[in-house]
Amino acid sequence: MELLTTNNVWMMVCTVLVFFMHLGFSLLEVGLTRQKNAINILFKNVFIICAGLLTYAILGFNLMYPGSFLAGIIPDHFFDLFGLNAPITDGALDLAYNNGYTYWTDFLFQGMFAATAATIVSGAVAERIKLGSFMLFSIIYIAIIYPIIGSWKWGGGFLDEIGFYDFAGSSLVHSVGGWGALIAIYLLGARLGKFGKDGRSHAIPGHNIPLATAGVFILWLGWFGFNGGSVLSADPSLTSITLVTTCLAAASGGLAAFLVSTIAYKNYDLTMFLNGILGGLVAITAGADLMSPLEAVLIGLIAGGVIVFGVSLIDKLKLDDPVGAVAVHLACGIWGTLAVGIFGTLAGLDQFLTQLTGVGIIGAFSCISAYIILSVIKSTMGLRMEEKEETEGLDTHEHGMNAYAEFGTAQNR
Amino acid sequence: MELLTTNNVWMMVCTVLVFFMHLGFSLLEVGLTRQKNAINILFKNVFIICAGLLTYAILGFNLMYPGSFLAGIIPDHFFDLFGLNAPITDGALDLAYNNGYTYWTDFLFQGMFAATAATIVSGAVAERIKLGSFMLFSIIYIAIIYPIIGSWKWGGGFLDEIGFYDFAGSSLVHSVGGWGALIAIYLLGARLGKFGKDGRSHAIPGHNIPLATAGVFILWLGWFGFNGGSVLSADPSLTSITLVTTCLAAASGGLAAFLVSTIAYKNYDLTMFLNGILGGLVAITAGADLMSPLEAVLIGLIAGGVIVFGVSLIDKLKLDDPVGAVAVHLACGIWGTLAVGIFGTLAGLDQFLTQLTGVGIIGAFSCISAYIILSVIKSTMGLRMEEKEETEGLDTHEHGMNAYAEFGTAQNR
Amino acid sequence: MELLTTNNVWMMVCTVLVFFMHLGFSLLEVGLTRQKNAINILFKNVFIICAGLLTYAILGFNLMYPGSFLAGIIPDHFFDLFGLNAPITDGALDLAYNNGYTYWTDFLFQGMFAATAATIVSGAVAERIKLGSFMLFSIIYIAIIYPIIGSWKWGGGFLDEIGFYDFAGSSLVHSVGGWGALIAIYLLGARLGKFGKDGRSHAIPGHNIPLATAGVFILWLGWFGFNGGSVLSADPSLTSITLVTTCLAAASGGLAAFLVSTIAYKNYDLTMFLNGILGGLVAITAGADLMSPLEAVLIGLIAGGVIVFGVSLIDKLKLDDPVGAVAVHLACGIWGTLAVGIFGTLAGLDQFLTQLTGVGIIGAFSCISAYIILSVIKSTMGLRMEEKEETEGLDTHEHGMNAYAEFGTAQNR
Repeated sequence: MELLTTNNVWMMVCTVLVFFMHLGFSLLEVGLTRQKNAINILFKNVFIICAGLLTYAILGFNLMYPGSFLAGIIPDHFFDLFGLNAPITDGALDLAYNNGYTYWTDFLFQGMFAATAATIVSGAVAERIKLGSFMLFSIIYIAIIYPIIGSWKWGGGFLDEIGFYDFAGSSLVHSVGGWGALIAIYLLGARLGKFGKDGRSHAIPGHNIPLATAGVFILWLGWFGFNGGSVLSADPSLTSITLVTTCLAAASGGLAAFLVSTIAYKNYDLTMFLNGILGGLVAITAGADLMSPLEAVLIGLIAGGVIVFGVSLIDKLKLDDPVGAVAVHLACGIWGTLAVGIFGTLAGLDQFLTQLTGVGIIGAFSCISAYIILSVIKSTMGLRMEEKEETEGLDTHEHGMNAYAEFGTAQNR
Repeated sequence: MELLTTNNVWMMVCTVLVFFMHLGFSLLEVGLTRQKNAINILFKNVFIICAGLLTYAILGFNLMYPGSFLAGIIPDHFFDLFGLNAPITDGALDLAYNNGYTYWTDFLFQGMFAATAATIVSGAVAERIKLGSFMLFSIIYIAIIYPIIGSWKWGGGFLDEIGFYDFAGSSLVHSVGGWGALIAIYLLGARLGKFGKDGRSHAIPGHNIPLATAGVFILWLGWFGFNGGSVLSADPSLTSITLVTTCLAAASGGLAAFLVSTIAYKNYDLTMFLNGILGGLVAITAGADLMSPLEAVLIGLIAGGVIVFGVSLIDKLKLDDPVGAVAVHLACGIWGTLAVGIFGTLAGLDQFLTQLTGVGIIGAFSCISAYIILSVIKSTMGLRMEEKEETEGLDTHEHGMNAYAEFGTAQNR
Repeated sequence: MELLTTNNVWMMVCTVLVFFMHLGFSLLEVGLTRQKNAINILFKNVFIICAGLLTYAILGFNLMYPGSFLAGIIPDHFFDLFGLNAPITDGALDLAYNNGYTYWTDFLFQGMFAATAATIVSGAVAERIKLGSFMLFSIIYIAIIYPIIGSWKWGGGFLDEIGFYDFAGSSLVHSVGGWGALIAIYLLGARLGKFGKDGRSHAIPGHNIPLATAGVFILWLGWFGFNGGSVLSADPSLTSITLVTTCLAAASGGLAAFLVSTIAYKNYDLTMFLNGILGGLVAITAGADLMSPLEAVLIGLIAGGVIVFGVSLIDKLKLDDPVGAVAVHLACGIWGTLAVGIFGTLAGLDQFLTQLTGVGIIGAFSCISAYIILSVIKSTMGLRMEEKEETEGLDTHEHGMNAYAEFGTAQNR
């Protein structure tokens, strides 16, 4: 009983931290884009956490976990969760749920995760997507696609059975979001002015780097809960080694991206440093509980390199990802998932091939799903703002307000 | 002993989270008002947490809780708390205090709550109140009015005896602050330029919406502690269902306010969305431990509607509340308190009437107290800045500094 | 076992909070300096936490703690931490480490502390130091100087043996950082324009006070972990009294600095209020577990006075400390260390003299070390940016980017 209470406290703390990641994403995305679209980006992030929690309550949670997904079309827990007679004070039922924490804690922790996948897409499509279209896409992605994929592993489905390992979601969360982002920016096209007629790429600098930096610190903070809570108990050894590997991968990811980009571009690039930290965090996520500190550092260092080349590659492919979401969440998500077969207690060729299989299946399903959903939206509601609206800014056209009503503007692109 | 330690850890975590709400209020208020008064608003918020903690240590805590309030004029714990010989390492005494956590944790958790009530007023009176007058009012309100009302329920007073229920303070904290805000904006009058000579209302846009949005995320974060800590233990069932209802009400409050305002005003209004989230949080606070998830959603949805109409009503009454504090904390505080009689395990006509009685008594006492204190201040020190000072900004006149010394200004209202 | 799990949860929560202080420092430093150097300041802070964690893993942790420092040149734990075969799931080994929490938690908590000392220097040298030189200095300071001093007390060295007391590091962390800052600003010289030809000091206002204020709130938040975690267990009595004394000292430090500066300078100075809070926090840190609430208030009040006079003194000495780091971390660090001999359960002349001895030895070693390291860097790489670079801003010259690409600029100093 005491241990259960402690487990539940830890899981609630982790839930709080993962919730806070949504502020981290908001600030990162706002900071790395332009002033004229800041309200739009904030709106999307606020929408995602709210709609994400509700749809996960109605549908996602029950799709994703056993006793629900396996039971057929109408999930078992559906009426529990939204029933007027839910056993809210029936400790026995709650506590029996997981031997470690309550049913409600489980729902909330997983619900915070679910919203993350859609948030990843949000940054990549910033500054040109129609708000209504994005909201529709993100609801479908959170409520249906994410939980279906999640159930394959965390719900005890076929990826779990073949031995695929993904501790806290390098693939199940980050690359699912990353694939969605990749498909979305392919279908949307680049922002006006991003690529010149000669095909040259033009940097479009973010308008508020202090907020973007705060966003990365907050995301790192949230990752203590994202990975620490994925232990699903307060087990002292496992939780604490997980936090150590998480932080060492973040630190080495940032330093590697900083060093590589300094050599490549001859100046100290703060946004590369920041994305390197995030890349290290994404990459360690698949095996944070399996790695020694040294292995965590190696995984982070490689992730930092992946970021620098990933950002450059996306640019060369004439894809426009304002915040680097594809490099961070997709490329490092894949790297981290494969790293489970290279480093750590499960390392081995069989495991590597299993990881590769998982990456491929998840990638195929994510891409196809995202492509279908977005194509249907594109051909009905449309995906992209009018040229005039994009030029003048989404804040004026969608929201009728300005993020900074009184600050003068140096340049109004 | 182990369980007690765990309870105490959870209560300390919640204390930390409630403390952080003061940053949330600061950013929300700063963001929704004008650049020229930003320092002033920050100063008020920093003052409130500091002065609030000290006055609560000296007076409030002892007024509010039994063994002190009931014991007469000089509270029992007074000398304990400020005595040089306080039993700081006397575990036995501390641990016996509450069967769940220590005396010191209790003081700090409750102290963070106390400062909240005054912070609510701070936003409503922004951009025109004299700083000295506000500081005096807030000290009296935190140190005397709030603890007296609190003692009626949480100190085991007459509202507790008649069966009034207010889990974490929809009424005891939020509507106490909200009534104070209402009286204060009535006595202060609207900001210059808010209402034209023809009586028309003019929107005065906030100057930094990203900070306001960050403030709302931080407030939501803090509410995990505000409601989760009000369980007064780490009981797994009760704490986790409380966090679930809290988050679902926040999400549905935000979505409802967004949908209603989009229908009413034909654009996606981010500030309505944000205030809807806060309204849902305030509304669930009275019965967060009593509701099923579905009931929490319903309470949130209605709160979202209350926000949109409440903001509009305040405007029609020619009252000027720059941040929507009255709609959020007073209107939704009342709604949440009454909802305990409509939804959840206590629902029933008797309970509803008891809740209504409590709302009425708390409202009457808060209004009369606030009116007397503010009227005395008005007729002695004065409440409102000179017209010239208000036009030029409080930062220049009260603080001799500028919140953003280097940013150009688009318009200087 | 249960108690150990709870202790470990509390220590992990505190680790998370101390990590977050690095965002607090970032925002405080950015907010109190100029727009043209904002990227540079953010870069330094991001670098410090990343490099700090890695160097502490490689070297610092093992230098600082017994079984390593005492064992000679090659530390015992070195290969544990970075070995491929580290016992990451060997609960027995981990759990035996401290009777209270795991080896990994210990490393991470202490690693977060280590980075703090270098961060303190970062603020003082802002707007003129070469980035490469600063990075080199901070690595050496974190990896070698800080752990050596720390081992004297927390590693069971000679300061511990003579009875020197420093609960959470008023001296071992804050004044070590503060001495480094003092030497650095002496060797660097003041920013261009800070002191006129007539020797008059000119205020250089910070460019974003809302961010600076957020930074102070976040630092206060982090201090719950900094002091609360220094109990090194979740002991209910000790942790909760520690949080109470910490918060009361912060509140009274802020109020005292506000009142003293209002009397001295005739306006409500927000930055003095904020630095007063930090001064109170630094001062209580040496004896947070020894003080009664009243003593904590007295320590805070005096710290608030120390801040106002300290800032003024630094200015009179023609030293340029943009964020007040020397007054906050050095002056209040010394005051707090001495206060252990004046107030609280250890008070007495002997203890006071022991504290004074510790302050002297730590000061001498910190100053000499910092002087040697910085002098060598100055005569090789150089410490200071070129005049032209400093005038135009470090962001353009070191980073090739602008913190706010679109905001107009009122004045470009």
